[in-house]
Amino acid sequence: MADFESRREKMINIIGDLLKRKQYAQLRGLLLPLEPADVAQLMEDIEETGIPLIFRLLPKEDAAEVFVELSPEHQEELIRSFSNTELKEVLDELYLDDAVDIVEEMPANVVKRILAHSDPEMRKSINEILKYPEDSAGSIMTTEFIDLKGDMTVEDCFKRIRRNAADVETISVCFVLDRDRRLRGYVTIRDLFLAAYEDEVREIMDTNIVSVTTLEDQESVAQKFSKYDFLTMPVVDGEDRLVGIITVDDVMDVMQAEATEDIEKMAAMLPSDKPYLRTGVFETWRSRIPWLLLLMISGTFTSLIITKFENALMACAVLSAFIPVLTDTGGNAGSQASVAVIRSLSLQEVHFSDIAKVIWKEIRVAVFCGLTLAAANFVKLLLVDGMLFQNPNVTPLVAFVVCVALACTVVTAKTVGCTLPLLADKVGLDPAVVASPFITTIVDVLALLIYFGFATMLIPGVG
Amino acid sequence: MADFESRREKMINIIGDLLKRKQYAQLRGLLLPLEPADVAQLMEDIEETGIPLIFRLLPKEDAAEVFVELSPEHQEELIRSFSNTELKEVLDELYLDDAVDIVEEMPANVVKRILAHSDPEMRKSINEILKYPEDSAGSIMTTEFIDLKGDMTVEDCFKRIRRNAADVETISVCFVLDRDRRLRGYVTIRDLFLAAYEDEVREIMDTNIVSVTTLEDQESVAQKFSKYDFLTMPVVDGEDRLVGIITVDDVMDVMQAEATEDIEKMAAMLPSDKPYLRTGVFETWRSRIPWLLLLMISGTFTSLIITKFENALMACAVLSAFIPVLTDTGGNAGSQASVAVIRSLSLQEVHFSDIAKVIWKEIRVAVFCGLTLAAANFVKLLLVDGMLFQNPNVTPLVAFVVCVALACTVVTAKTVGCTLPLLADKVGLDPAVVASPFITTIVDVLALLIYFGFATMLIPGVG
Repeated sequence: MADFESRREKMINIIGDLLKRKQYAQLRGLLLPLEPADVAQLMEDIEETGIPLIFRLLPKEDAAEVFVELSPEHQEELIRSFSNTELKEVLDELYLDDAVDIVEEMPANVVKRILAHSDPEMRKSINEILKYPEDSAGSIMTTEFIDLKGDMTVEDCFKRIRRNAADVETISVCFVLDRDRRLRGYVTIRDLFLAAYEDEVREIMDTNIVSVTTLEDQESVAQKFSKYDFLTMPVVDGEDRLVGIITVDDVMDVMQAEATEDIEKMAAMLPSDKPYLRTGVFETWRSRIPWLLLLMISGTFTSLIITKFENALMACAVLSAFIPVLTDTGGNAGSQASVAVIRSLSLQEVHFSDIAKVIWKEIRVAVFCGLTLAAANFVKLLLVDGMLFQNPNVTPLVAFVVCVALACTVVTAKTVGCTLPLLADKVGLDPAVVASPFITTIVDVLALLIYFGFATMLIPGVG
Repeated sequence: MADFESRREKMINIIGDLLKRKQYAQLRGLLLPLEPADVAQLMEDIEETGIPLIFRLLPKEDAAEVFVELSPEHQEELIRSFSNTELKEVLDELYLDDAVDIVEEMPANVVKRILAHSDPEMRKSINEILKYPEDSAGSIMTTEFIDLKGDMTVEDCFKRIRRNAADVETISVCFVLDRDRRLRGYVTIRDLFLAAYEDEVREIMDTNIVSVTTLEDQESVAQKFSKYDFLTMPVVDGEDRLVGIITVDDVMDVMQAEATEDIEKMAAMLPSDKPYLRTGVFETWRSRIPWLLLLMISGTFTSLIITKFENALMACAVLSAFIPVLTDTGGNAGSQASVAVIRSLSLQEVHFSDIAKVIWKEIRVAVFCGLTLAAANFVKLLLVDGMLFQNPNVTPLVAFVVCVALACTVVTAKTVGCTLPLLADKVGLDPAVVASPFITTIVDVLALLIYFGFATMLIPGVG
């Protein structure tokens, strides 16, 4: 099958054309073979007026799947355009966890209407899940799963699965509960196929269970999925009763969102959970200005240091030309170390107990980097600045001071860069927030102190 | 069940103790209820000598699962310690894609021994998959799946699944092939449960197939998984013949690795596919030094500009005190924009066609950010630098010049920051590599030009 992305532009034109000419049967035929996610994307691409129309062309079941994939704005618009019967039809086709996702994004009056038209059982379940804190395991789970009893035979299980398959999100893993709904084990659909019909579930079930609790953070849930290669994770309450399951497709979204959040924090932004183009200008400003302000104000320290060494600069003006190279290289070297450590922390490849190993490794890397950079810079200063641009002030002594300061700055920057995130993690702060944006400022200050320190010490007449 | 992480330290001590006292039966009982990933982690935590011993305590099937989770170094060590019979036993229990992963990491002589002791069918399949380029769909697929024919009844299918369930990685999705092994449709195990025993597969199968080709990049495969919420993706060759499937657990690893790669590139590192602590010092140096060198050399431009305006700095020395604040704030503002755009590009939320929207958005955000920062800085300069630190050189005029330059720098930085990644993507370069590390250097140059431009224009006696 040709790739959807490559046909997208063309399809948008065809759909617009069919809409204009009111060729609805043909339009329906065009959309039917597409995946729900692709139909939703096409609907968002064309002008808004077409959305309710296209939606009504789709068969009921497809329509619900497409609905789930639309942006909250378009979902809201559609719900407002629905008759009560239409709303009920869509709601009946939704899986519980999708319904909860939608309810979470809608304004209060729309939520009220949704709950009024859900069947009583779903209404109860939605309300149940809405009680869990945002980003907790409870908030992303679904309460629709296959539960079995230990004394069922494999044949009983098959019957039960056949009866419930339409209403649950997955039948790949079934959970075995005791009389108090406590989780006792699980069987995969594969286990059932490999067993004899008359076997009892309790004989074939796996009793080594990895589960999460309803209040566990979704990031930790995602880490467990990825560590254990699970497709489904049981969610239990404080008394070990099974209250829901989390499926891997929801966890993939969590993983992407958490990686985005880490990246945003490293680039000194407050994380946002909306896609870039759907975030308003004011909202974007609000997520970026706090760190810009804080880092600018903390730049006062660099100004102070330079002012303090103003006389040194007056005596040897060429020194000021190398301030940006020095601070930038320090910043780059430091953020390489901090970013590597932050990512390893969030993938749980590195723990605080590894701090000695990490620092020892970074110091050795830093010494090699520092020496390479200093050597390269020394040659560059003499050849390019000294000979090519004929700058008489770039003497071998000045070049030497710049390069020694450079090497020391790189070692300092990498040491600070790898230590800060580990310390932040240890005291329970977010390494990405605490460490990454501050590295530049801290390294700037240290780089300047090192630079002016060597200059006043080594260059006669300075300081 | 108590969380594994919280019991880890304690278990390491107990295992060490049991090993010392040769209480192997007890040790076995302790390990049996654990997940394979946890056992592997414990084995890596304890001293190396214990690994082959613990491995031999585990039941055959568990042993193979634990083996898959070990690091390549320990896998190699174990293979070298295996007798031929032991090696064959482990290989027989492995899934094909895991076997391929292991073979890819081993040195040639170990690979030879593995292939010699695999059964002929597995050997053929391993060789098949090894032919695909690294990071292609073919290289991460498995060729073990359930294939059905269109004229089979549901009952036939259940029989076929029952016969093959033990040898395939998933039975959740089964693929329907024609006589030439071309992919004609698929049925989920749930579809089969919901159908009548006498239904023919061709009547119930879904014929709208999303597939990938063997040579497709794994990043694009991961994006499709996450867009369509799939658990299994068919991989076809150039003639639409089904050659393998990719399962979601392998894709989760790809997603994590791709996010890590993006993060590394943004922090000016060459991406590495090894975990942080397993990368050697020299290797780390090699992944970091190229960008550090390049960026340092490109810092020549900033030196040149400052040297060119040396007279301006001599006439008004206080100006040099604000160079770091100006370039750092510009760098931060620019990388906020570039990182946001790079991440959106890699999640396919933004495309090149959105360039006008993106720039228009960033300019508005930048104007608001620039004004906020300039106002805050003006007040700060007069109150803190002027009054608190009694610096007579920080006159209102100097403060005004710094703040105007700051606002203009922020707008320039954000515009450059959002445009560069889009352009890089358009011409087929990697946005994270091209845009992110260079933003700082480009913004530094522009910031200095803006700063000295305003200074020579507005401050009498300068320039």
